[in-house]
Amino acid sequence: MGLYEEIFEQAQTAQRILEEQRENIETIAANIRERQPDTVFLAARGTSDNAGRYINYLWGAYNRLPVTLATPSLFSIYQRPPRLHNTLVIGISQSGKSPDIVSVLAEARNQGCPTLTITNAPGSPLSQLADWEIDICAGVETAVAATKTYSASMMAAAMLSCALAQDEARWEQLSHVPGWITEVLRRDETIARIAERYRFMEQCVVLGRGFNYATAFEWSLKMKELCYVMADPYSSADFQHGPIALVEQGFPVMAVAPKGEVLADLMGLMELLCEERKVELLTLSNDDDVLSLGQSAIQLPADMPEWISPIVSIVPAQLFAYYLTVAKGFDTEAPRGLKKVTETV
Amino acid sequence: MGLYEEIFEQAQTAQRILEEQRENIETIAANIRERQPDTVFLAARGTSDNAGRYINYLWGAYNRLPVTLATPSLFSIYQRPPRLHNTLVIGISQSGKSPDIVSVLAEARNQGCPTLTITNAPGSPLSQLADWEIDICAGVETAVAATKTYSASMMAAAMLSCALAQDEARWEQLSHVPGWITEVLRRDETIARIAERYRFMEQCVVLGRGFNYATAFEWSLKMKELCYVMADPYSSADFQHGPIALVEQGFPVMAVAPKGEVLADLMGLMELLCEERKVELLTLSNDDDVLSLGQSAIQLPADMPEWISPIVSIVPAQLFAYYLTVAKGFDTEAPRGLKKVTETV
Repeated sequence: MGLYEEIFEQAQTAQRILEEQRENIETIAANIRERQPDTVFLAARGTSDNAGRYINYLWGAYNRLPVTLATPSLFSIYQRPPRLHNTLVIGISQSGKSPDIVSVLAEARNQGCPTLTITNAPGSPLSQLADWEIDICAGVETAVAATKTYSASMMAAAMLSCALAQDEARWEQLSHVPGWITEVLRRDETIARIAERYRFMEQCVVLGRGFNYATAFEWSLKMKELCYVMADPYSSADFQHGPIALVEQGFPVMAVAPKGEVLADLMGLMELLCEERKVELLTLSNDDDVLSLGQSAIQLPADMPEWISPIVSIVPAQLFAYYLTVAKGFDTEAPRGLKKVTETV
Repeated sequence: MGLYEEIFEQAQTAQRILEEQRENIETIAANIRERQPDTVFLAARGTSDNAGRYINYLWGAYNRLPVTLATPSLFSIYQRPPRLHNTLVIGISQSGKSPDIVSVLAEARNQGCPTLTITNAPGSPLSQLADWEIDICAGVETAVAATKTYSASMMAAAMLSCALAQDEARWEQLSHVPGWITEVLRRDETIARIAERYRFMEQCVVLGRGFNYATAFEWSLKMKELCYVMADPYSSADFQHGPIALVEQGFPVMAVAPKGEVLADLMGLMELLCEERKVELLTLSNDDDVLSLGQSAIQLPADMPEWISPIVSIVPAQLFAYYLTVAKGFDTEAPRGLKKVTETV
């Protein structure tokens, strides 16, 4: 087992959490609805923090819950935590061990807040501080770079969103995720060929907005930790408030741009970047105009709703990072200076 | 007038807001205390968003208010805003014009939330949606890269923190900011010399944690928009959850590391980076051990409390970006592809 196999396991892990956790998640949702939290406070690091970015948009849009991404050092190092009033506090961690994340849940419990953990390690120190726990059922992940635990954490978040809203139509849409993941995994050879072209890339920008802001962050993180490429994620709005100055002719830009509400905004920026700034563009999309815009494109499933798209669109991005790592001759299983479990204070 | 002069104006702008806005800010604080908000929701872009990152730590630590950085697209494009319960909503914008930020304040008002704007353009569209307004009194800023409006926005936030907490001791500390800025501006020649060394740098990492997480972001943004250097900001914790794989021998790392609660954590990471990974380190600090750790160092005022340090420590970072722009032969006043006022949806 290794990184490549774990990327390919994601259709099954999505199916497994759908089957094994729905009942638990419905129960948790009923409990949360009873508590009627005004707001959500979420602590995570690395890939789990990117799952948190997805939750930020998803629960904001579909559950009308404002989501705050925690500043763990206020809890751990400064020991000056904010007052959390009528707040659901969530810790996301594959290992359930990082002391900074644990310190946020400990304080939340201290303040009497309801607590939830989303983890691949039931029974971990984090779990012991949680009123409720969602096991993401991803199985052992051996590669240092997280892949299946990321999509499974997003599945947990999406399931809880549907359960909180008691939204059967979205539950039905969610049942198609394993199929859509299987579909994008069939782009394997295309992605391997596209990655070759980027063999000598040293830096790039990854654009995404709204739900797929998270995908831009996670794709960037995979390219940093596996390919040692300085990859910077931006929303199409933030990018225009300064960082756009970076790009010159041929500068590599990746865009996560499936059909949806934010596509028009992203399209405007991509056209400007292609026509005026002459960047090199790689897109992930299911929109024909986007797919024909840049030098390279990876096709996403046609009928996938935007709110679900981050769970599917990260998969070809992971494959791209995998093949680029191979093309550059680096070790896909052991990125330099990283361990599987990172514990920070 | 230009970028260099505006950097040098910052001792005066800090003094001006202290003198001209204290009464207004005390009144606003009394009004906010009366409303007793449970939480703060903050919308901003670019440099103003980095001022928001400072507020996130400062008000969390000293006013016990959890601060949520807004996802403006939920308000503007998706039109699916979260429910903001008993929340103070703040818009920070030099120009007070960006439609996405305006849409957040419009919805906040619609939901009956108290609203505040921090701006350099009183009477702007944003101001018209705010119950209260703080004029940052920075005067006309002509350079595209924001400098004095950043330190002045942070001053506004720091003054409001003191006023909310009715904390005379911190008001007294704040009165020293103009003097500390004057002190760091005297490092001008040293900084010019240090910047030379980085003439051929194309990418770097900027580390900061806690209060100075904001400084790492803003220093990075200046290097991106002025020097076209791919500069990535990280907290010392986030950096270890993946991106640390990027660094190899000689990789340039900047660290904002004044004395304070987070220094031990940052010091541990800097030592590892220097000893094991052999990076090239530039530090901003007032700690002797930190100052002697890397290849280059810029000295910060000795007696500056950590909570205030971001307002002072950004100044030498701005000067560094200015001199690096000059060394690279770029235009300090007109970064490519940027306008002074950026409007995004």
